[in-house]
Amino acid sequence: MSLISAQMKEQIEGGSWIRRMFDAGIQLKRQYGEDAVCDFSLGNPDLPPPASVAKGLRDLAEHAGEPFSMGYTPNGGSEWARNSLAAYLSKEQGIEIKGQDLVLCCGAAAGLNVFFRSVLEPGDQVLSFRPYFVEYGSYVRNHGGVFDTVPSKPDTFQLDLDALEAAITQKTRAIIINSPNNPTGVIYTLEEVKALAALLEKASRKNGRPIFLIADEPYRFLAFDGAKVPSVLPLYDYAVLVSSFSKNLSLPGERVGYVALSPRMEGRAELIAALCVANRILGFVNPPIVGQHLMAAALGTQVDASVYARRRALMADVLKDAGYEFQMPAGAFYFFPKAPGGDDLRFVNEKLMPQLVLAVPGTGFGGPGHFRLAFCVSEDVIERSREGFKKALRS
Amino acid sequence: MSLISAQMKEQIEGGSWIRRMFDAGIQLKRQYGEDAVCDFSLGNPDLPPPASVAKGLRDLAEHAGEPFSMGYTPNGGSEWARNSLAAYLSKEQGIEIKGQDLVLCCGAAAGLNVFFRSVLEPGDQVLSFRPYFVEYGSYVRNHGGVFDTVPSKPDTFQLDLDALEAAITQKTRAIIINSPNNPTGVIYTLEEVKALAALLEKASRKNGRPIFLIADEPYRFLAFDGAKVPSVLPLYDYAVLVSSFSKNLSLPGERVGYVALSPRMEGRAELIAALCVANRILGFVNPPIVGQHLMAAALGTQVDASVYARRRALMADVLKDAGYEFQMPAGAFYFFPKAPGGDDLRFVNEKLMPQLVLAVPGTGFGGPGHFRLAFCVSEDVIERSREGFKKALRS
Repeated sequence: MSLISAQMKEQIEGGSWIRRMFDAGIQLKRQYGEDAVCDFSLGNPDLPPPASVAKGLRDLAEHAGEPFSMGYTPNGGSEWARNSLAAYLSKEQGIEIKGQDLVLCCGAAAGLNVFFRSVLEPGDQVLSFRPYFVEYGSYVRNHGGVFDTVPSKPDTFQLDLDALEAAITQKTRAIIINSPNNPTGVIYTLEEVKALAALLEKASRKNGRPIFLIADEPYRFLAFDGAKVPSVLPLYDYAVLVSSFSKNLSLPGERVGYVALSPRMEGRAELIAALCVANRILGFVNPPIVGQHLMAAALGTQVDASVYARRRALMADVLKDAGYEFQMPAGAFYFFPKAPGGDDLRFVNEKLMPQLVLAVPGTGFGGPGHFRLAFCVSEDVIERSREGFKKALRS
Repeated sequence: MSLISAQMKEQIEGGSWIRRMFDAGIQLKRQYGEDAVCDFSLGNPDLPPPASVAKGLRDLAEHAGEPFSMGYTPNGGSEWARNSLAAYLSKEQGIEIKGQDLVLCCGAAAGLNVFFRSVLEPGDQVLSFRPYFVEYGSYVRNHGGVFDTVPSKPDTFQLDLDALEAAITQKTRAIIINSPNNPTGVIYTLEEVKALAALLEKASRKNGRPIFLIADEPYRFLAFDGAKVPSVLPLYDYAVLVSSFSKNLSLPGERVGYVALSPRMEGRAELIAALCVANRILGFVNPPIVGQHLMAAALGTQVDASVYARRRALMADVLKDAGYEFQMPAGAFYFFPKAPGGDDLRFVNEKLMPQLVLAVPGTGFGGPGHFRLAFCVSEDVIERSREGFKKALRS
């Protein structure tokens, strides 16, 4: 007799490829030693948080003996924290955002759950482009929605708007884009995002109900060679920006993120109220208070992104040297090369893993035929993987 | 055109009485000044966190410049944090609990959501005793369950097991008890909890499926006059302990709590795996890392509970002096007196509020005819309310 629900059982059995590689990694490291394994499977940022974070903690410690120092905050975050973030985002997005246009959440994953809890009617559809971050599906289904995907353009991984248009129905409630993209490293251009917004305006009018455009942007800070990530909030009335400080401040364990609504969105006060209620009833209650302080203390600072730039160059050299086909990532810390032979599960498990090189099969992102390499690891590890990548390709 | 779902609209309109009193309080404080209002409406602990919390923050600040200092932890919390808590709970519960028998969550509210996400089949019923913490209903409905309540015994607020037995159906999946109780301050006796366990064993056998007994115990540390809160984990195979460090460490803003399963529960490894997956897919990802450190640093310490004991004595004096009927709370920081005249909404809004005394109507907890007073306020405020309580009763 199982103690868990049938749906949860399925969820566990389906598992996630990232998780499977994580378990395989632990196994291999035990067997061959930590230093023998080149683990590119996890997007866990390894750079230390900027000095502003330690300073924020020290400042907070001075007040930790006072009443309410660690007290409940409003469900959407402290007013001072919301206002600081609004000022920061106003500059980033190039449009004036007020504290009451956003809510703080326990990370971007919480932000997406809270958003879907607030807006989805039973059976409403949410769409995204393949390949995609696998958890989106769970976030939508948690709240009674249906998650579907459409392809992105082959090779370039840019938005396939024809495919999107064909997939939109009366029940479509939101589109999620992720730029810079996990796993492809693609950044959507301003023209593409504008064309997407125009398509959604038309479809919303036809549906008689707005379709939200959710931009999930935790990697925004990491755009290489002067690339620019277009700001969505000024471009579309129903644009929703979801992000976190997990990557730019190397703060993923403390869980601070946010949902910000376009100031062009009419009736957004009710949606903000709903997001606060969802924060409360889903059990988040409020984003962690220490995280709110650290965010405010560190806003505008970030980890040393030049380290990621050097690793990207080295990883590209290793892959090229070995003869892999890949597109240079414009942002984020992932490569998404083609799996030689085309079968990514086989290549990752039977070719790379025996060389003690860990990657995640593209199948895990709805992008078969490729594999994902996370380069948030030291240059040492990347250099050390050179022979393994060569042997895997030759074998 | 509303941007939020019909269900969320209902949720917001239903609101919570605690929230309404909070808003009324802000209004009154603006109008008459902070010091003129005696606000007993909020269970926001006002004692400073123990010194161990500030020390924990300072220690953490020393390592905050290191890679992964604020990194992701496993979904169920760091192994070291789970093991420390398990050792602490083994003593508290009088039965050996291992780190793998519990998961850390973003507070007890998260713990309950994660648990329901893991175990509820569509339409499964969860039961609790009136009066009860209002959010339980939302937590159950978030995950497709049905929430129903049965009365507790009039006047004593002890468990009415006959009423419970009559309400149990084939679909009953869990019972929630909350002891020391919010809002009544009652502590259930060992005999009562044993009788409840026996009843659930019988009903589980009849149903051919276990009924979980969830003990929600954030106020466990606050039991007066030497009262003891019975430990549930040794008493029932399907006992589930949910709690947090919000009250005993005055740490509610940082969101650290846990779900611990009885070590007598067969097949609990699968349930623990499900709770970890639920932590991940609901968007909690992991309990805040700073909170995990603070919990570990402060385990076994607590706020100065003698302050609450003195306030309880003073509050009792004020109420007695004015002529209210009430039962002395055995634990937690709430009184739940009878509303003179019987109509709690009217008494709170038309009698107490004009005296600038804020309380929450019992109706907000499914306990009409009473009102709740939270005494996590200074003795000054309690003393200052003396005349207001008298006038409200006479008017």
